[in-house]
Amino acid sequence: MTSTEKPIIGFIGLGIMGRPMSKNLLSAGYPLVVYTRTKSKIEEMEKLGAKGAASPKNVASESDVVITMLPDSPEVEEVILGENGVIEGIRPGTVVIDMSSIDPVVTRKVGAELAQKGANMLDAPVSGGESGAIKGELAIMVGGDKEAFERCLPIFQAMGRTITYMGGLGSGQTTKLVNQIIVGINIAALSEAFAFGAKAGLSAEDMHRAISGGMAGSRVMEMMVPRFVKRDFKPGFKLDLHIKDLKNAINAGMALKSPLPLASFVEQAMISLSAEGKGESDHGCLVELWEELSGAEVR
Amino acid sequence: MTSTEKPIIGFIGLGIMGRPMSKNLLSAGYPLVVYTRTKSKIEEMEKLGAKGAASPKNVASESDVVITMLPDSPEVEEVILGENGVIEGIRPGTVVIDMSSIDPVVTRKVGAELAQKGANMLDAPVSGGESGAIKGELAIMVGGDKEAFERCLPIFQAMGRTITYMGGLGSGQTTKLVNQIIVGINIAALSEAFAFGAKAGLSAEDMHRAISGGMAGSRVMEMMVPRFVKRDFKPGFKLDLHIKDLKNAINAGMALKSPLPLASFVEQAMISLSAEGKGESDHGCLVELWEELSGAEVR
Repeated sequence: MTSTEKPIIGFIGLGIMGRPMSKNLLSAGYPLVVYTRTKSKIEEMEKLGAKGAASPKNVASESDVVITMLPDSPEVEEVILGENGVIEGIRPGTVVIDMSSIDPVVTRKVGAELAQKGANMLDAPVSGGESGAIKGELAIMVGGDKEAFERCLPIFQAMGRTITYMGGLGSGQTTKLVNQIIVGINIAALSEAFAFGAKAGLSAEDMHRAISGGMAGSRVMEMMVPRFVKRDFKPGFKLDLHIKDLKNAINAGMALKSPLPLASFVEQAMISLSAEGKGESDHGCLVELWEELSGAEVR
Repeated sequence: MTSTEKPIIGFIGLGIMGRPMSKNLLSAGYPLVVYTRTKSKIEEMEKLGAKGAASPKNVASESDVVITMLPDSPEVEEVILGENGVIEGIRPGTVVIDMSSIDPVVTRKVGAELAQKGANMLDAPVSGGESGAIKGELAIMVGGDKEAFERCLPIFQAMGRTITYMGGLGSGQTTKLVNQIIVGINIAALSEAFAFGAKAGLSAEDMHRAISGGMAGSRVMEMMVPRFVKRDFKPGFKLDLHIKDLKNAINAGMALKSPLPLASFVEQAMISLSAEGKGESDHGCLVELWEELSGAEVR
């Protein structure tokens, strides 16, 4: 990439998050080469001015920067290291930015393979959900080579608002997992406490009014109490995705030897609700487990 | 009490919280009769215009409203129901306001005994700590007879800012326990997540900057990250007091049949730090347990 022309960006994965993110890159004037498994989604992006490609390998051979936005670690490994994968088409000097939320152990493995080809990897998972992706207001947590990060900063700025460099490769993923551990346990804390209060006859709105201004106040409380009261568990953020994040945290904790007893408990609690068919519900449905445990309804 | 004259308030328990609370009642113009176990503390209040009494019984016989501010359930039972206790001196129509943080099961037992004497009980635990007590800015959560609550509202307003009526007797205590369950688990969540991040090499301040604006943001995060970074565990709120609150929550949960698996875990974690001699430290020292578990220092 030269300093005057915008680099060609390859974008792989046009799902709920990847589609609006790639559209924001097009709007910012980046030439885009795209690939995803569903052909109609490639055609949609072609109509907007992107170039479709036949495989991740083809994307890589035509791009200066390759972005992946995929469901989980196995998909990232397959798309980058697998047959017809990014690694087969990549040129030295290319930067691969994985914006998926995956296990940082896999991130470092993939990064090491790409380094063998002279390519650089950044891990840059996001938070802010579909609405943050559409508005270009994602929080992006980035790990990897700092010089590569600085070179790619304008690209991140086309998709996000709070962009934080966290350290070496995998640091972005680890930060995302730190976030998801706290959010998951905070939802569980609220669920446990409010089910206890409900069993004693207290209303959720009274509890909220009495305590939200003090030390117990949190973003989770502000987001979840209205969901509890209205029984509104339309996602939002799907329970099964939170289970995936906690699974990745626990895997990473195992590799690091950093035990996560509360996150493990909450992961298991979430699995039990997923087993009841609630995997596609908002993660706020976690309160239903404590309602089952206590026999009281939070309302 | 008549509608024109201020009622005489008896105040029992002149500790870290009770002393500033009783001073605020004096400043608001209430005639005060005080008792506490330490004679020098009674004398201090006498100099400020309060009348000292020889026992809880004597306080009760001279007061229209009796306030207790004591360490835990056994002290409240002893002071109200014990020998020379409030119940021996109380007159029909007196309101007993217990502002201690205790087990709501004990609250209801004490309230039933007082009702036999024609006295009314309110439970009105507070949050906001010593500084909130000094400034008269406590949050006060009140349970009991609503008419008695409304009659006592000016008294609460002399000591607190956010005053919430929660329902029948014990509801104030239950609300305080809901608060303490959430705060305790949220501190544990932050500790577990930040120790995991630290083990992976991330700095606490970088993690804080990257995630505090999003879904993981909380009052606990804002209060505790600076403590973690500065290793500042001067209370604040003492670990042993948080253990007491979780013990009361678990007792109440047992009586209600409302299980508290995460609060129980956090209580046990806190006990292990108390066993190391940290009971008088701020409850933020909970992070030290996860630092021991992971072998990483959050900084």
